[in-house]
Amino acid sequence: MRKIVIIGCNAAGMTSAGYSRKTDRTAEITVVERGKYPAYSRCGLPYVIEGVIPNLEDLLISPVEWYRMNKINLMLETTATEIDTSEKTVKITHKEGEERTLDYDSLVLCTGAEPVTIPVPGKNLPQVYQLRTIEDGRRVFETAKERKSVAVIGARFVGIETAAALRHRGCEVTVVEMLPQILDGILDPEFASEVQKSMEERGVKFLLNSALEEIKGDGHVEAVVAGGHEFSCEMVVTAVGVRANIGLAERAGIGVSKRPPAIKVNEKMETDVKGVYAAGDCVICPTHAVVPQPWMSQLGTVAVRQAKIAGINAAGGNTKFPAVLGACASKVFDVEIASTGLTETCARRFNLDCISAGAKLPARPHYLPEKVPLRVKLVARRDGRLIGGQIVGIKEAGLRAEIISAAIAKGMTADELSMLDNCYCPVIADANEPLSTAAELLLRKLR
Amino acid sequence: MRKIVIIGCNAAGMTSAGYSRKTDRTAEITVVERGKYPAYSRCGLPYVIEGVIPNLEDLLISPVEWYRMNKINLMLETTATEIDTSEKTVKITHKEGEERTLDYDSLVLCTGAEPVTIPVPGKNLPQVYQLRTIEDGRRVFETAKERKSVAVIGARFVGIETAAALRHRGCEVTVVEMLPQILDGILDPEFASEVQKSMEERGVKFLLNSALEEIKGDGHVEAVVAGGHEFSCEMVVTAVGVRANIGLAERAGIGVSKRPPAIKVNEKMETDVKGVYAAGDCVICPTHAVVPQPWMSQLGTVAVRQAKIAGINAAGGNTKFPAVLGACASKVFDVEIASTGLTETCARRFNLDCISAGAKLPARPHYLPEKVPLRVKLVARRDGRLIGGQIVGIKEAGLRAEIISAAIAKGMTADELSMLDNCYCPVIADANEPLSTAAELLLRKLR
Repeated sequence: MRKIVIIGCNAAGMTSAGYSRKTDRTAEITVVERGKYPAYSRCGLPYVIEGVIPNLEDLLISPVEWYRMNKINLMLETTATEIDTSEKTVKITHKEGEERTLDYDSLVLCTGAEPVTIPVPGKNLPQVYQLRTIEDGRRVFETAKERKSVAVIGARFVGIETAAALRHRGCEVTVVEMLPQILDGILDPEFASEVQKSMEERGVKFLLNSALEEIKGDGHVEAVVAGGHEFSCEMVVTAVGVRANIGLAERAGIGVSKRPPAIKVNEKMETDVKGVYAAGDCVICPTHAVVPQPWMSQLGTVAVRQAKIAGINAAGGNTKFPAVLGACASKVFDVEIASTGLTETCARRFNLDCISAGAKLPARPHYLPEKVPLRVKLVARRDGRLIGGQIVGIKEAGLRAEIISAAIAKGMTADELSMLDNCYCPVIADANEPLSTAAELLLRKLR
Repeated sequence: MRKIVIIGCNAAGMTSAGYSRKTDRTAEITVVERGKYPAYSRCGLPYVIEGVIPNLEDLLISPVEWYRMNKINLMLETTATEIDTSEKTVKITHKEGEERTLDYDSLVLCTGAEPVTIPVPGKNLPQVYQLRTIEDGRRVFETAKERKSVAVIGARFVGIETAAALRHRGCEVTVVEMLPQILDGILDPEFASEVQKSMEERGVKFLLNSALEEIKGDGHVEAVVAGGHEFSCEMVVTAVGVRANIGLAERAGIGVSKRPPAIKVNEKMETDVKGVYAAGDCVICPTHAVVPQPWMSQLGTVAVRQAKIAGINAAGGNTKFPAVLGACASKVFDVEIASTGLTETCARRFNLDCISAGAKLPARPHYLPEKVPLRVKLVARRDGRLIGGQIVGIKEAGLRAEIISAAIAKGMTADELSMLDNCYCPVIADANEPLSTAAELLLRKLR
């Protein structure tokens, strides 16, 4: 009987376990998790704080019962301390101190990632939080009841979602970002400033081009210094990205990269040690769909897909992880944001000869009382092949980014997208699909 | 200076004119339309009757001003009576009797289609309507104020949308359909009965397997006989499809097909007479994306795309119409319906060796209070290549069908769709995209 050990019960770990079980009905599957909860949705945390999702515990992806039903041996509050790849064993320690050694035939590393901390004075004050765990969520939620003035450090998805959530809760919120734009790598500057403007209209303040320098306070947070400015606040939430947990793998001699820190895998999600797989925020994807090089994604969707491949292969299957596109989405206030492939800025960083077209386009016929304006941008190579897309609007942005994902993944050109068979019915969509219209604008530039 | 004459100012005619203008800034462009309105959205008619769209005249796609601004000579209430393809002239007659002859370098036939009438006793009674024109819309709208018991004949999109609209207005509505299911060719039976059931829950009655035999009444509609049943009603709306207007083309010696009646075109949307193009409901598409044979579509979206090609080529451009997929969508009550490519039933009619998988899947994480269950069905060839998809749900069906359209158009397999880069954010989409989950179910059947 095959023994499969999975380290980490996050989205990747849970998914790996599930697919291992689907692939091998009799395998002995053990998942070791150092935290007290099995896999939950980290992406839901800001929306619990906002109040859209009622309870933090609701975020559990599957109840403990699911593990039992699938005969998955779930060991919570248990830390894997050492892997011996020649003996094929993992040493684990329960929080009560009990130590054990697990044998494995296949091992899946889902060690995840930790939030990056910013090494500034005051970083250890109470009321300086991250938003990565249910415990973090609880702290931010509770503190926001009393302390109504907040600095959010970092303006990628977690940062702006947390800012919107706290603003929604009545806080005064200032977002501090080191770069000259929010959502770098996700949106091009003109789209990013559109989102920023819409958040400013809802009362969120932004301080761009400003690195965090100091958190001031005597026993509790009183002010933040960033980019030479000082402003008072009572709580700080840092959201400046995560760093892969690679220590365990590294100590076991499993191949890792240092910049960025990540466990290296092939397209079977197998590390350089046979029988040892890895998935989720701790790994670097073998290749990107547009630029053929390893790609750090650290998205929940990618983690789930990687884990599916790792889980199947760990259980004796043979399947491959495709090139990654990095499709992602968010919603802040009433603005939906979606992006896939490369932004124009990013494409230029890779010296790709590309062209782009963007426009504000209606997703409903003009005669319908409901208005759904979308800002759409497409990026393509000079030969017309699409390499990226961004959409911002009140709704339907995410699904349109998925159409672009399918287009990029299959080498579709702007010409083909401009003629794509769309679904028209006045109350749900216009006869002229915004994506096709944007593709046509791109075509005109290409000629 | 190039002279372009377009016959018919429907969606196809208007679009042709617009793209001719974009292609040739100086051409003399004339559009001849026998009706009193320039192009309007026929698909919007049921929603005006329902009350979602305030006024019938709102349905105009572009105001008369648009034609003037684009220097398009719009001749309303003017009928093209004869084409001489060797002399390159079109005879036209204004409704006041004035006759003229127009010269052309390029001619675009957008003669559209007429609703099929059912040759039964009583078909000429007042209160027996179609729903094709603004005038039809006005008649149905006005009559429904007084006459609250309606039979709708035909259960494709126009039929069920009209039924839902009239039910919404408080009418007793019975839909009569000759076939054993509603939405034949659009949905497979199990999906069709799901939609039917949801309409029945809102009070619409259905009489399937029942051909219309007679409309009874003494001076006004009193009852309908269909499939051997008789039931009383005060108004009848027939919606049993349309037949292409090919008479003018046929008399001019332009190549047409008889079954179904249609003007034949190549992929440049050019008829067998050089310089004479055709687009919209009067033509048969050169080829279908799944079955390589001519395909009658008669969808607004296809008309617009054909007209784009015809308009560009008529103005000296050189562009091609791709294979058609027939993506389409509708909304009745709170049910959104979308379909693209072939249904399983349709694929079997073409003797394609195919396989399908369907499931009811959530489009939101379980922990979100908003529930968006979708019924998804995918159809694929034995080699895994997708050939069709159907989605029914409260929203987001249409855009998902477009993802499937892109997939089919580019030869995507179920395996690739199961791993497609999707956009996840709890409040707008689940990490597990229903399309990918459905693709995975399909994969399991393929193995």
